Amino acid sequence: MPKQNLQARGPVDGFLEGHAGLRIDGARLLDRLEELAKIGADPAGGITRLGLSAQENAAMAYLRDLCAEAGLATETDPAGNLLVHRPRTRREAAPVLLVGSHVDTVVQGGRLDGAYGVIAALEVLQVLHENDVDLPVEMVAVAFANEEGALIQTPFWGSRALCGSLEDGLAAEDRAGRPVSAYLAQAGGSPERLADAAWSPGAIAAYLELHIEQGPSLERLGVPIGVVDGIVGRTILDIDVVGEAQHAGTTPMADRRDAMVAAAEIILAVQRIATEDAVCATATTGYLEAHPNVTNTITGTVRLTVEVRDTDPAKLVRGEAAVRSECARVSAASGCAVEARASMRSRSVSTAPPLRDAVRGAADTLGLPHLTMPSGAGHDAQIVALVAPIGMIFVPSKRGISHAPGEDTAPADLVHGANVLLHSVLGAQTAAAERV
Amino acid sequence: MPKQNLQARGPVDGFLEGHAGLRIDGARLLDRLEELAKIGADPAGGITRLGLSAQENAAMAYLRDLCAEAGLATETDPAGNLLVHRPRTRREAAPVLLVGSHVDTVVQGGRLDGAYGVIAALEVLQVLHENDVDLPVEMVAVAFANEEGALIQTPFWGSRALCGSLEDGLAAEDRAGRPVSAYLAQAGGSPERLADAAWSPGAIAAYLELHIEQGPSLERLGVPIGVVDGIVGRTILDIDVVGEAQHAGTTPMADRRDAMVAAAEIILAVQRIATEDAVCATATTGYLEAHPNVTNTITGTVRLTVEVRDTDPAKLVRGEAAVRSECARVSAASGCAVEARASMRSRSVSTAPPLRDAVRGAADTLGLPHLTMPSGAGHDAQIVALVAPIGMIFVPSKRGISHAPGEDTAPADLVHGANVLLHSVLGAQTAAAERV
Repeated sequence: MPKQNLQARGPVDGFLEGHAGLRIDGARLLDRLEELAKIGADPAGGITRLGLSAQENAAMAYLRDLCAEAGLATETDPAGNLLVHRPRTRREAAPVLLVGSHVDTVVQGGRLDGAYGVIAALEVLQVLHENDVDLPVEMVAVAFANEEGALIQTPFWGSRALCGSLEDGLAAEDRAGRPVSAYLAQAGGSPERLADAAWSPGAIAAYLELHIEQGPSLERLGVPIGVVDGIVGRTILDIDVVGEAQHAGTTPMADRRDAMVAAAEIILAVQRIATEDAVCATATTGYLEAHPNVTNTITGTVRLTVEVRDTDPAKLVRGEAAVRSECARVSAASGCAVEARASMRSRSVSTAPPLRDAVRGAADTLGLPHLTMPSGAGHDAQIVALVAPIGMIFVPSKRGISHAPGEDTAPADLVHGANVLLHSVLGAQTAAAERV
Repeated sequence: MPKQNLQARGPVDGFLEGHAGLRIDGARLLDRLEELAKIGADPAGGITRLGLSAQENAAMAYLRDLCAEAGLATETDPAGNLLVHRPRTRREAAPVLLVGSHVDTVVQGGRLDGAYGVIAALEVLQVLHENDVDLPVEMVAVAFANEEGALIQTPFWGSRALCGSLEDGLAAEDRAGRPVSAYLAQAGGSPERLADAAWSPGAIAAYLELHIEQGPSLERLGVPIGVVDGIVGRTILDIDVVGEAQHAGTTPMADRRDAMVAAAEIILAVQRIATEDAVCATATTGYLEAHPNVTNTITGTVRLTVEVRDTDPAKLVRGEAAVRSECARVSAASGCAVEARASMRSRSVSTAPPLRDAVRGAADTLGLPHLTMPSGAGHDAQIVALVAPIGMIFVPSKRGISHAPGEDTAPADLVHGANVLLHSVLGAQTAAAERV
């Protein structure tokens, strides 16, 4: 569709003002979150609703049912993604404003990570439908399949498939080696037509995602809305420390090459890199496996994994270099061999300034304070960013807890966030239309 | 037997000089060590001959056979210990000079730890028998059952039983909960008569044990004989570090209570206690278990075990206090809760000066340099030390390796050590007789 035509259909003066009083149905939103949280509730605590499992399938079925009730049209694409649109529109007709998140969780995860963004997107679409709001760039809601990658070890499965960046998708499998195709058929997808899940270039005018912060910043500052300026990039280093396993009683201290002590030096150096040295935003040693791991034996080998994150690609590179340099220093000082290998590198992405402005404008319309901040966690939005401008909205996480049963957000904040999403969809019309 | 009677029978001038030319049969010693190493040889490497297992039973049977061939008398006591004496003597008759070690191993252990001391004791007894040496205090050789405690989790099982310090012995079991009684019957012992394994007070005039050093000191200094002055005491602390498991991407560095970082601080402090601060001889963190132990999550909890060792009880106490004080410091600085509990405390013991002199005299007779040194590892001797004077002899361990397939000692050093044991038995006669 020629650009000038769409711009001719673009928001006219008074469009935003005309809809400034529009609100989502807060009670309905909270009810649906509660209903969805029952699907995959784990007797051991939290929610276990793994991507492409029977639990995610049940969640998708629940969403289809509520869409049908609301008069919204649904389709499940070959990758298992659920797409929802108003009945009079078809996404094939023109580039759309895509809005959504995912409904899968980690093992014993929380009820809001992903789920909130999907339920809010459907609520916004329903309100637009009920009020018959004429959008120059039509909105499509999406529940991406398998964002977490907890069962089928390919995180961002659905968004990668839709954005054409799912390489060798059918090679994905669960930990037992069962191929993704078996799961996909159960999920209403189609292994044979997986490549057809990819949208044509330009089909997404813009993408918006509402999500819980998963960190403590908004709560600590008492700010209800986060305007995300970028999603951090991440580098994971697998580090092997090789010393010598010896008798802990008979080996004098001076004769030791203790891999546990060398690993401890590395852990503290990693901590310094993101604190005193401020090389990158975060640096974490989350995994450590020692061998032989016996009280009366000096440790022979340790495997560590270290991850560094930053929204600035240059800082990410410097963070990795700093970890490697500390590994070399510890190796020289301890006599232990230390080898570091990057097992994963994900690039940081920026949100589009016009979409940030749309989110800020929405919060201002609603009288809600907002804070511009990075996202320390990965989201489907970072995949969509490779093919379209993205915007992200955060709401506070109580105590910053996420990926755990204690994950929670105050009801008022959940309602505020969904209203900001609604007005961001309205405010993004100009930005989205300019892309077309 | 009245003391004066025995002293009247004590070594007269010329006793030692008369036997100065006596030597063990080096080739026979080395052959038997090689034969014994075949019993429990582990296809995965090293020797797995766990205490009270079928493999230890087979080793005891091998020893009984070679004793029978040598004309020595054997008995298996209710605890499964093998006792060996010359046919014309009976241990009931008078206090004896007990000499031995154990033949069980850890999983994939070495061929010399324990086994060397037993084979050498039998060799010495056989040489005394063949040369019809009249000893004022008769020698009895012993192979203590289950010193390592690798299968039945009661280390020093046999020596504790013989010395009357095996409390609630029948409650011992393997990791699967199978009681020791089933194993004991197979080992030729007697669960019903277990208490009868204890010797009456004063029945042991003295105890000698020859052992590999299990550390690198003798090899490094090029000294063939170690005269042990004491066996280290040991305190094991189980330390729990409790922080908060949070998302590694979304939790700012300043908001973390990272149990892995706190644990690393403790590991380095433990190292300093026995190096820079020289509070005690050794301090080791050999065991670490982190939770959830996942790359992208800040560690919530860590369990460490730390052990400190010293021959000086005061230094052992100061070592434990230093670890506890560092735990408190790290807790205050990190915001993590740190709790330390002593799960084991073993007292250090000293060898008897007259027996040290006997060992030094034996080495001098043989023209072998010797070094007075502590034992960093635990031995049956430390149990016997509670009821009788003990002496210990060390030979070098190649590269200090022990409890591992690479455990080894040069053949010449093995022969030297057994000759030192022979002449220590002769030289200890005065010291032993004085005890009776």
